[in-house]
Amino acid sequence: MNSFNSRLARLIQSKKSHLCIGLDISPEGIKDNSATIEDLKLHTKKVINATQDLAVAFKPNLGFFERWGSIGFQWLEETLDLIDSNTLIIGDAKRGDIGNTAKQYAKSLFDHFGFDAVTLSPYMGYDSIQPFISDPLKGAFILCRTSNPSASDFQNIETKKNKLFESVAKACYEWNTNDNIGLVVGATASEEILKVRKHAPGLPLLIPGIGKQGGDLKKSMIYGNNNGISIINISRSIIFPPDLSENSIRNAAKEYVSSMREIIDDK
Amino acid sequence: MNSFNSRLARLIQSKKSHLCIGLDISPEGIKDNSATIEDLKLHTKKVINATQDLAVAFKPNLGFFERWGSIGFQWLEETLDLIDSNTLIIGDAKRGDIGNTAKQYAKSLFDHFGFDAVTLSPYMGYDSIQPFISDPLKGAFILCRTSNPSASDFQNIETKKNKLFESVAKACYEWNTNDNIGLVVGATASEEILKVRKHAPGLPLLIPGIGKQGGDLKKSMIYGNNNGISIINISRSIIFPPDLSENSIRNAAKEYVSSMREIIDDK
Repeated sequence: MNSFNSRLARLIQSKKSHLCIGLDISPEGIKDNSATIEDLKLHTKKVINATQDLAVAFKPNLGFFERWGSIGFQWLEETLDLIDSNTLIIGDAKRGDIGNTAKQYAKSLFDHFGFDAVTLSPYMGYDSIQPFISDPLKGAFILCRTSNPSASDFQNIETKKNKLFESVAKACYEWNTNDNIGLVVGATASEEILKVRKHAPGLPLLIPGIGKQGGDLKKSMIYGNNNGISIINISRSIIFPPDLSENSIRNAAKEYVSSMREIIDDK
Repeated sequence: MNSFNSRLARLIQSKKSHLCIGLDISPEGIKDNSATIEDLKLHTKKVINATQDLAVAFKPNLGFFERWGSIGFQWLEETLDLIDSNTLIIGDAKRGDIGNTAKQYAKSLFDHFGFDAVTLSPYMGYDSIQPFISDPLKGAFILCRTSNPSASDFQNIETKKNKLFESVAKACYEWNTNDNIGLVVGATASEEILKVRKHAPGLPLLIPGIGKQGGDLKKSMIYGNNNGISIINISRSIIFPPDLSENSIRNAAKEYVSSMREIIDDK
């Protein structure tokens, strides 16, 4: 089937990379609180130029663009034009709304911006997800067990059968009739990755939380990538090296790709 | 305390209204699939002019603006300029992300757009909510039991203690140290409104799902507004009357306000 998940699998193979780079560009990141949006655009270009051949996907985080209102969305539109068709673009939007509104967001993210996939929140259930998975070519990574400290507040609540994130994993596995659903599972929760794998064996995972958040790369790869089609997101540790140079950005990305390849080879 | 919830309570009293009007303006709504954004701006102005004195709050739904990308966000910026300071503006964004990103969204929604309150998804837990509730003057309505058909997929999952939405209600009640948290509970789930009231007695509710979605206005008011500070959201049944005229929009809003007053008086 020509589906989002099969496109992802082919790109991982051809680029020999599981790297997803989070585009979370902010004045705080470039350590210049007076930075204008032009400064941020320049840094965004630098990151894309330096890493485009190494990354399987870029993941622009919409919050960092929305912060600036309509001119931030112009910046996002310009950013997407810089990325070649050999690299997937995942809109990290974490949207989740009733069907009628979900359709508007799907028009925004797929038709207007042209993202290949999006991230979604499962709290509102199937009809909030459906408009994003009806086209097999477009993908949806659904929040399952996230990487943040408070993730366990609700996601790890014990239900009568299992933990909430396990119910989410099982439901998403059932909803995946178009081969275009993946799950977001944080690298900071490696035991949970194992459980997710049990409930949703064939789904790709998008694994954030490596780097500043302290997640474990090796466990994430061994547990989370056992089907070979998962991707690891790195944001701050690649896009903001101490000297902010294109060279250092590229080297940081290269190092992550090498580490991932070594883990796969050593298995 | 000069908090968001106390501002809401004062406005409900002074306007004698519990009406929140959802600004979900789309070409489908005005039955003109070739509508330009200028047509939608005109209709938005019409709705605001016709109802501003009757509504306690307007609730622009960000999905309907994002659908158009950066020019949609310009429309949102222009829309907010039309609303007077005697009417609250709730950004229906349903955001929920890790702390660092949540800060960006808070900058977007409160500092850039200037919303008085926002809607948020609880799935990622406390640190995804915290940046939105640190300023007591700004409010957050957190999704608890939503109005859509699939709401029960996860929200009604039986945990070892209760249903998931009840755990969310309890947690939000505890987090409400700045008197600025409310809950979203759908009118389509009146039994659930009663339970939410038990777990979170003092919190304002934002109740959507009346009108096209089929929720029960009377039960929503009696169960959900027993503390007198809840608001009922109406979107399509007010903003898209059959003839789309300012007069019909105003009459629809007036009728809802009257019905709500009657329910309160009859109690």
